[in-house]
Amino acid sequence: MSFAATILTLYPEMFPGPLGISLAGRALEEGKWSCETVQIRDFAQDKHRTVDDTPAGGGAGMVLKADVLARAVDHALERHPDSPVLAMTPRGKPITQARIRELAAGQGVTVLCGRFEGFDERIFEGRPIEQVSVGDIVLSGGEPAALMLLDACIRLLPGVMGAASSGTEESFEEGLLEYPHYTRPVEWEGRTIPEVLRSGDHAKIAAWRKQRAEDDTRLRRPDLWERHWGARD
Amino acid sequence: MSFAATILTLYPEMFPGPLGISLAGRALEEGKWSCETVQIRDFAQDKHRTVDDTPAGGGAGMVLKADVLARAVDHALERHPDSPVLAMTPRGKPITQARIRELAAGQGVTVLCGRFEGFDERIFEGRPIEQVSVGDIVLSGGEPAALMLLDACIRLLPGVMGAASSGTEESFEEGLLEYPHYTRPVEWEGRTIPEVLRSGDHAKIAAWRKQRAEDDTRLRRPDLWERHWGARD
Repeated sequence: MSFAATILTLYPEMFPGPLGISLAGRALEEGKWSCETVQIRDFAQDKHRTVDDTPAGGGAGMVLKADVLARAVDHALERHPDSPVLAMTPRGKPITQARIRELAAGQGVTVLCGRFEGFDERIFEGRPIEQVSVGDIVLSGGEPAALMLLDACIRLLPGVMGAASSGTEESFEEGLLEYPHYTRPVEWEGRTIPEVLRSGDHAKIAAWRKQRAEDDTRLRRPDLWERHWGARD
Repeated sequence: MSFAATILTLYPEMFPGPLGISLAGRALEEGKWSCETVQIRDFAQDKHRTVDDTPAGGGAGMVLKADVLARAVDHALERHPDSPVLAMTPRGKPITQARIRELAAGQGVTVLCGRFEGFDERIFEGRPIEQVSVGDIVLSGGEPAALMLLDACIRLLPGVMGAASSGTEESFEEGLLEYPHYTRPVEWEGRTIPEVLRSGDHAKIAAWRKQRAEDDTRLRRPDLWERHWGARD
């Protein structure tokens, strides 16, 4: 059965977008995943098809209405009752590669994309929605973040990357950044590939890579290092 | 002068993609930013137009060649000498809203998108490239991350969001998540908008919002709270 991606959005024309090209695009053509969009505006009930209103208490921007969002979410839950609903919001929990693996192992995911100032907070009390954040930056809407989240899932679906790249030896899989890569030419602008990588000694190469992954994580991402390895020190 | 986005990629057809629609799309039409893609493959010099090779030391996947990347980066630097070059990589420094503001205030940005296993590490020694990461997840390539990064910059360009939304009162701007939003109806499925927001008392509303922003940050993102406010406690 293929992985069903359902996107609730005011801009359905953004999908599949870049996911219709390259690795994800081929997987889409091969039926390894499906891409369905739901236009949130279709669930507005007044004649102006209103989806947003001014923030209670004042302030700039517009807020997506809980009643309209709820009807759109209910529609998606009816069609895909076993798919978790994720809302892309900077107030959410930072997404992790572990959560991506779980999602990719499931039947699909429903992604709720906001625009304007955000969602009426009550939608998160009234419906089972996981609030996730992809990077500590603010976007014009959830759609670019949804594309990123889906891309991360799709590449892990069975048969998408091929047997050669299982995706198990890469950044974040063991709470570490991945080690650095090198390829030919051996010398480039006076810089050579580290000698150990040219030694043919597999044990030495594995040890070097592990050391570099640990060193780089400690240096570049003390937060990751602390979270995953802090307890060991 | 408009903000020049230059994307070095093997998939130029992914751009502007979702950035050609809605807020970013209108800004593109109005000339507030420009979107130029550079096909990395055009800088391969052999007859097969090879851009990648197997990893030194063995392992799955393919690595983008430093010599080809360098020629593509040099081309971009020649055209836009004052634009910083950012490579999207999970080994990079997590992007922050503060860095997005700096980029948006500049003349543009050149974004280098990898595919396959990644870049030959020597490119980062041989060229002035800032390695940035957008979320701790692994993608099939840098393109979805580049779209997100550019979206975050574009919305901050002068005149894009309009005067009403200056973007200064939102998540991460003061090291805090944004407070929750509410809008009509006042009661939805038995849940009412917090009374203070309906009081009309602006000082009280501001105090409530500040408190909620702090509480939610402490609860949901102890990492952010610690980083920005740890020194105060």
